[in-house]
Amino acid sequence: MSTFVDIPVGSDFPLQNLPYGVFSTANKVNRRIGVAIGEKILDLSVVATFYPEYVQNALRADVLNELMELGYDAWNDVRRITKSLLTTGSDLHQNTELQKIALINQSDAQMHLPAKIGDYTDFYSSIHHATNVGVMFRGKENALMPNWKWLPVGYHGRASSVVVSGTPINRPLGQTQPVDGADPVFGPCRLFDFELEMAFFIGGPANKLGERVTTKEAAKRVFGFVLMNDWSARDVQKWEYVPLGPFTAKNVGTSISPWVVTVAALEPFAVPNFPQDPKPFPYLQHDEVFNFDINLIVDIKPEKGTQTTVSQSNYKYLYWTALQQIAHHSVTGCNLNPGDLLASGTISGETSDSYGSMLELSWKGTRTISLGGNETRKFLQDGDEVIIRGFCNGEYRIGFGECRGKVLPTIPFEN
Amino acid sequence: MSTFVDIPVGSDFPLQNLPYGVFSTANKVNRRIGVAIGEKILDLSVVATFYPEYVQNALRADVLNELMELGYDAWNDVRRITKSLLTTGSDLHQNTELQKIALINQSDAQMHLPAKIGDYTDFYSSIHHATNVGVMFRGKENALMPNWKWLPVGYHGRASSVVVSGTPINRPLGQTQPVDGADPVFGPCRLFDFELEMAFFIGGPANKLGERVTTKEAAKRVFGFVLMNDWSARDVQKWEYVPLGPFTAKNVGTSISPWVVTVAALEPFAVPNFPQDPKPFPYLQHDEVFNFDINLIVDIKPEKGTQTTVSQSNYKYLYWTALQQIAHHSVTGCNLNPGDLLASGTISGETSDSYGSMLELSWKGTRTISLGGNETRKFLQDGDEVIIRGFCNGEYRIGFGECRGKVLPTIPFEN
Ligand SMILES: [Ca+2]
Ligand SMILES: [Ca+2]
Ligand SMILES: [Mg+2]
Ligand SMILES: [Mg+2]
Ligand code: NI
Repeated sequence: MSTFVDIPVGSDFPLQNLPYGVFSTANKVNRRIGVAIGEKILDLSVVATFYPEYVQNALRADVLNELMELGYDAWNDVRRITKSLLTTGSDLHQNTELQKIALINQSDAQMHLPAKIGDYTDFYSSIHHATNVGVMFRGKENALMPNWKWLPVGYHGRASSVVVSGTPINRPLGQTQPVDGADPVFGPCRLFDFELEMAFFIGGPANKLGERVTTKEAAKRVFGFVLMNDWSARDVQKWEYVPLGPFTAKNVGTSISPWVVTVAALEPFAVPNFPQDPKPFPYLQHDEVFNFDINLIVDIKPEKGTQTTVSQSNYKYLYWTALQQIAHHSVTGCNLNPGDLLASGTISGETSDSYGSMLELSWKGTRTISLGGNETRKFLQDGDEVIIRGFCNGEYRIGFGECRGKVLPTIPFEN
Repeated sequence: MSTFVDIPVGSDFPLQNLPYGVFSTANKVNRRIGVAIGEKILDLSVVATFYPEYVQNALRADVLNELMELGYDAWNDVRRITKSLLTTGSDLHQNTELQKIALINQSDAQMHLPAKIGDYTDFYSSIHHATNVGVMFRGKENALMPNWKWLPVGYHGRASSVVVSGTPINRPLGQTQPVDGADPVFGPCRLFDFELEMAFFIGGPANKLGERVTTKEAAKRVFGFVLMNDWSARDVQKWEYVPLGPFTAKNVGTSISPWVVTVAALEPFAVPNFPQDPKPFPYLQHDEVFNFDINLIVDIKPEKGTQTTVSQSNYKYLYWTALQQIAHHSVTGCNLNPGDLLASGTISGETSDSYGSMLELSWKGTRTISLGGNETRKFLQDGDEVIIRGFCNGEYRIGFGECRGKVLPTIPFEN
């Protein structure tokens, strides 16, 4: 089976991928749902009538929430038909007039947030990241907190501040305590950082408040994955986070890539779940493999410099699976709605070139990262653009596109 | 000026109050916006044509978000006209046919969440509460964390789990660590608690991500207040909260009272802001008085027992004002949307009969609270109903109605 759409070598979006996104164009400004294929977007609002009637409204919506809510069987139906529409010899292939309005150049499209995000949760599920941070701040002996291997630690994030790739982020102002024990100061964040993460959207009908989602049911609640940069004001976080967790250090903004890659596209790249010791409680156990070999790359492009890779990590390093994250999130009865976003936490690998944040790469500012030329970094500087990419490699490539964001200078404070 | 609607002695809802809510009735099941007056509800969808055209759509909506977004001047316009409609001699007074459809008995109405809550934040702004918890867990010397008097500590909560008064809450299952240093166990929460809080809804047009809200601007971003019970699984919280804050211990459910009491109604009960030392940073300073004398009462009604008051506190004990909470929330650029909910944190007074949680009232389970008869408590038992009331008292009474919730037994775990 092959597609009639041109797929350049190394494209993130072959016929096997078919990720969903929300886009608009200059001459048609309403937001609509599309599927990425090669360098094109298939506008699902234009071809909705080719799909079963029960999904057509969802395909004509301006966010993916309705399709997410329809659930697992609907996702399979839609995927099957999208694939057949894009296959050589299809009705769409034979109708060049329809192709003209249904296939849009990605370069002509503006991408938007794929869903209305009701709630956003950030986990802390990479063992190498949690260990690194622990060693830095508490020493080797107490690196992992006692709870860490018993449950997927996480916290509620700020849904309103999630933005789509390309949105610039101003360096925040805030309170920090540069000298331990001294009075805090107010001013621009000095230790501004990225966090390399992935996140998935919840799908399926919502569980009611009080109803738990089992790990078994959880497999049908994962709609698809995006790349994420959880911008972090390290110095603000250090001062504010005791005892209720990160707050203004994180609601600066959280960037996600616009294309949602489905579990169906990722399944061929499944790898064994991370070995867990101690054995988790029954509510966290599952036999199903739900870990994926997704290469993750972070580049920094200084305002006047060349784009340089600073980290190469992989989704597979996560200790806790998405199914365990869902089961734990809902164990006390939390209702999860379609469009909710659950993030992995910073994903660091084992080696120092695979760490998912400047905090770790510069080891708390004690090491210098070279960006080529004369540019070096410990944390992010104004004008730096952070570019995260992700892809699975095998007989074909399943890519995520990019999650980009540029650091702009602080907006001065005026009362 | 007086109203033609009967106002029983001691009513929470005289003509000076006029709180907003969302309700439905058995014979008209669509949700609509109403204003409480005595034992009636004025159905704003029925009388919308009496209001300026620019607010009519907002008054015909099924949530308050649109009215919240219209902003301060619109709120004043609507309040003025509602007051005149309900005043003796008004068009409504003279039209008994219209009264029949516009004035509904509260006893015939079902109340719903007043707004679509995009994001929910919980602060920790009561100095007596923070001190009590600090003394219990860290001793008198280190009771308040170093950051506490410099910024209003808060965290992002779970918006989806906010429910309206009357919704029962199942005792959650979760992980706890009954013996320090030992392995955790999985089972029903043993230290289930309420938290006496108040919360306010954000109004006004949203600030964009990156734009700060000053304390001055903040005064026009507060739409109105409700009572809140932030249900808390203390033993779950203790095990899970390090280092990222409370998570599943809090997303069990958070109850709010259905009637939103506006700042205009509270203004006559303003009292001086809590004295602050050290002087906060300029971004947190304001001259405006924004503290209110609101009596708060918590009752517990056991399944087979009499309703007993366990705490009497007051909103005025908050160290940080709502204006400071808004300014701090947005200082790193967080966008605040109409319908967002910002809660005070547990409000405890100075004396042991004014503490806002069982944790404090039973002093970590070391004291017994008598509920009359043979009933005693350290934490909540199944079948207990927690009833929070709030009111301002002066020449007249501005009440909040009730925030109720009953603890149901754990739903057993099945995988
Ligand atoms: Ca993070
Ligand atoms: Ca609370
Ligand atoms: Mg963030
Ligand atoms: Mg809660
Ligand atoms: Ni939220």
